[in-house]
Amino acid sequence: MKPSIPKGTRDFLPAEVRRREYIFAIIRKHFRRFGYQPIETPVMEDLQTLTGKYGEEGDKLLFKVLNNGDFLSKADENDLANRDSNKLVGQISKRGLRYDLTVPFARYVVMHQNDLAFPFKRYAIMPVWRADRPQKGRYQEFYQCDADVVGSDSLLYEAELTQLFDGVFHELGLRVIIRLNNRKILAGLAEIAGLADNMMDMTIAIDKLDKIGWDKVAEELTGRGAAPHAIQIIKQFLDASDLEAVAPLLAGSAIGGQGVKELREVFGLVAAQSPKNRVVFDVTLARGLNYYTGAIWEVAVDTDAPGQENVRMGSIAGGGRYADLTSIFGMKDMPGVGISFGAERIYDVLEELGAFPADAAEDLQYLLLCLDEDALQHGFGLVSRLRARGIHADLYPSAAKLQKMMKYADQRGVPKVLIIGSEEVKSGAYSLKVMGTGEQSKVTEAAL
Amino acid sequence: MKPSIPKGTRDFLPAEVRRREYIFAIIRKHFRRFGYQPIETPVMEDLQTLTGKYGEEGDKLLFKVLNNGDFLSKADENDLANRDSNKLVGQISKRGLRYDLTVPFARYVVMHQNDLAFPFKRYAIMPVWRADRPQKGRYQEFYQCDADVVGSDSLLYEAELTQLFDGVFHELGLRVIIRLNNRKILAGLAEIAGLADNMMDMTIAIDKLDKIGWDKVAEELTGRGAAPHAIQIIKQFLDASDLEAVAPLLAGSAIGGQGVKELREVFGLVAAQSPKNRVVFDVTLARGLNYYTGAIWEVAVDTDAPGQENVRMGSIAGGGRYADLTSIFGMKDMPGVGISFGAERIYDVLEELGAFPADAAEDLQYLLLCLDEDALQHGFGLVSRLRARGIHADLYPSAAKLQKMMKYADQRGVPKVLIIGSEEVKSGAYSLKVMGTGEQSKVTEAAL
Repeated sequence: MKPSIPKGTRDFLPAEVRRREYIFAIIRKHFRRFGYQPIETPVMEDLQTLTGKYGEEGDKLLFKVLNNGDFLSKADENDLANRDSNKLVGQISKRGLRYDLTVPFARYVVMHQNDLAFPFKRYAIMPVWRADRPQKGRYQEFYQCDADVVGSDSLLYEAELTQLFDGVFHELGLRVIIRLNNRKILAGLAEIAGLADNMMDMTIAIDKLDKIGWDKVAEELTGRGAAPHAIQIIKQFLDASDLEAVAPLLAGSAIGGQGVKELREVFGLVAAQSPKNRVVFDVTLARGLNYYTGAIWEVAVDTDAPGQENVRMGSIAGGGRYADLTSIFGMKDMPGVGISFGAERIYDVLEELGAFPADAAEDLQYLLLCLDEDALQHGFGLVSRLRARGIHADLYPSAAKLQKMMKYADQRGVPKVLIIGSEEVKSGAYSLKVMGTGEQSKVTEAAL
Repeated sequence: MKPSIPKGTRDFLPAEVRRREYIFAIIRKHFRRFGYQPIETPVMEDLQTLTGKYGEEGDKLLFKVLNNGDFLSKADENDLANRDSNKLVGQISKRGLRYDLTVPFARYVVMHQNDLAFPFKRYAIMPVWRADRPQKGRYQEFYQCDADVVGSDSLLYEAELTQLFDGVFHELGLRVIIRLNNRKILAGLAEIAGLADNMMDMTIAIDKLDKIGWDKVAEELTGRGAAPHAIQIIKQFLDASDLEAVAPLLAGSAIGGQGVKELREVFGLVAAQSPKNRVVFDVTLARGLNYYTGAIWEVAVDTDAPGQENVRMGSIAGGGRYADLTSIFGMKDMPGVGISFGAERIYDVLEELGAFPADAAEDLQYLLLCLDEDALQHGFGLVSRLRARGIHADLYPSAAKLQKMMKYADQRGVPKVLIIGSEEVKSGAYSLKVMGTGEQSKVTEAAL
């Protein structure tokens, strides 16, 4: 039998695991530093927790786990006879794999509300599963890295989450643009353009400005029923260079004014602490309008930054504020704001830019190669003592030909080897070889 | 709808996640220090990879994932009509959740053999799933922490894995007994007692010595067909105080002699490096005889150690050597040896003993409480600068009543709060309160 793994899933080699862990560790470090706390939820959730939370399309993409034992015993006779997969699924499956980290988080908050202090800040870095058609860069099993705070509508959180983006990408050595918008500004624009009932249509069109240009956006707006006057107002907004240029245009809309006020406060707080990356207002930004009610973020690689000009990658992180997280599970008045890092995309960008530190994939500091049985006994003592000192060290497990052992050292990507023969055992001065340069020297145990 | 999670699964609160991570981090640190490399495999494996690897009982305990889409469309008509769950499962499910980390590792080694350097040392700390009936301390989703080396039969690995047990439990502050046996010694005993064909029966009986005492063991041996002479020989073995007392009894058995020789070497290597915990020979140790072919380990809490007398917990780690890992997937001659830590049981023991460090569940260093709006603005700048210095700090997001904010600090388990009012903003000397003692002092930003 030739083994394989399910389509859309991956094995990771040690060097890949370490590079992924390098990214996760930096994200985790900043999450913790900002006071977000780790929680863990099961990989399997009750299907009733998941179903209906991601739209009809999402329900189809849920992985369902078959009930154990004689799962057909209570199945409906007609559904079986009719091969009605849709009707049968609820009878033979009651669990599913989590589809994202947000719905399990909402369920968690409701179930553990008496054990949590609100505002509750949590992070989670865990895999999720979606039965999407696998393609380049899209997997059925992938990680999400989320931080959310629930139980507060303070804009200080918008400011700190912007700083969190800034800090993580700065430490990853990636220059990014952090784009911010506010759903209330889009609502104000729709109101002023007389498109309040068609806000979604409007935002879908203007969201494409970057890709298709203004003429095509105007065409699409017309197609979606916007009058010439409305289109002209929208054009004015899109031409506005920043938040302060947009503000007077929203003078006639209460909700739009509120959006401006909120964003002003967030930009003010962030600017006062001198972010390392550009934080800009983008009125076209309209992701997640089905659930976001306030701030909206999207983070992309800054292709104006030296060395990053050729990166072609969409958003690598994002987030937003929502007015209600948990009422679907029976708990009201739980507003929140959250962000998510696209770790798989960040990995691809860092790899493309050669931006992983040289030692991100490296773990072992020394590999000991012993030329005879006596040296091997000696080497075992030495490697034991090095490890006891916290040094990452390994020992080739037999006195093999040096060439063979050097090949092994090379394959394992070890930075340095120690060669031990009868001479070295006697003198205690080991032959140290730096694999990259071939440089050789003598070194004692204490000097390692 | 009242939310719930599947039986046998768990949510973890932040303090629990941190205590679990404390254990995982120590295990991981030692794995890496000993040159074991991290790999990652998918949570879902092809069912054909899993099925038949864990016995008939194991197959029943596999969680199977329903095929997506119209899964019934190609199901066999008769199997549907007969509600034949067993026959239908393979038609509607082709993926399952991993049941352990060993079979996926074997598959991984075979699939990636050209990318790996042998001996290949890997570790993995990942959850697995079993549809066991949930009960106290037994879950359907739980973590395994495994280290294995494949592609070598060197006994140096038996020695280093014993050291690994020793190092991990020492750092966890737990005194343990590391018990070692060798399947070859059990085979030798069976040979000498004339029970070579009934070795399993024999070991099942003597494995119970601890629990039921010699008389009952002798009874059981008789019941399983052992002659009085055989029982007398077994008694001699069990009475032997250590490996050197057993050695002469095995003089007549080649395989038994080999087992003694191997264990002598391992004990010699380990003793020379002064382990912190007791490492003892135990001829009754017989776990995993279906797959182990050489060394067998079992680690238990040392109930002779001060403070640990009342711990009632079976084995908390174990392992063994196997002659063949991968032939089931078509790759021959891949011997190996591996160990596994029972992290969930270790957690329970540490909790029972109060052996978690006080700060294992703690993350935040300071929580800032601001008494008015000006102070809040000031506080946001301060918390931003503290975080930029790597300090774990948080800010209560509004100028609420001090009592309310202190309650929040208490609920979050923060060790220290900084109270900021107009006085503090002016002077830059903040009121620092230690939550545990109530002790108060003034402190500047630089001194934090």
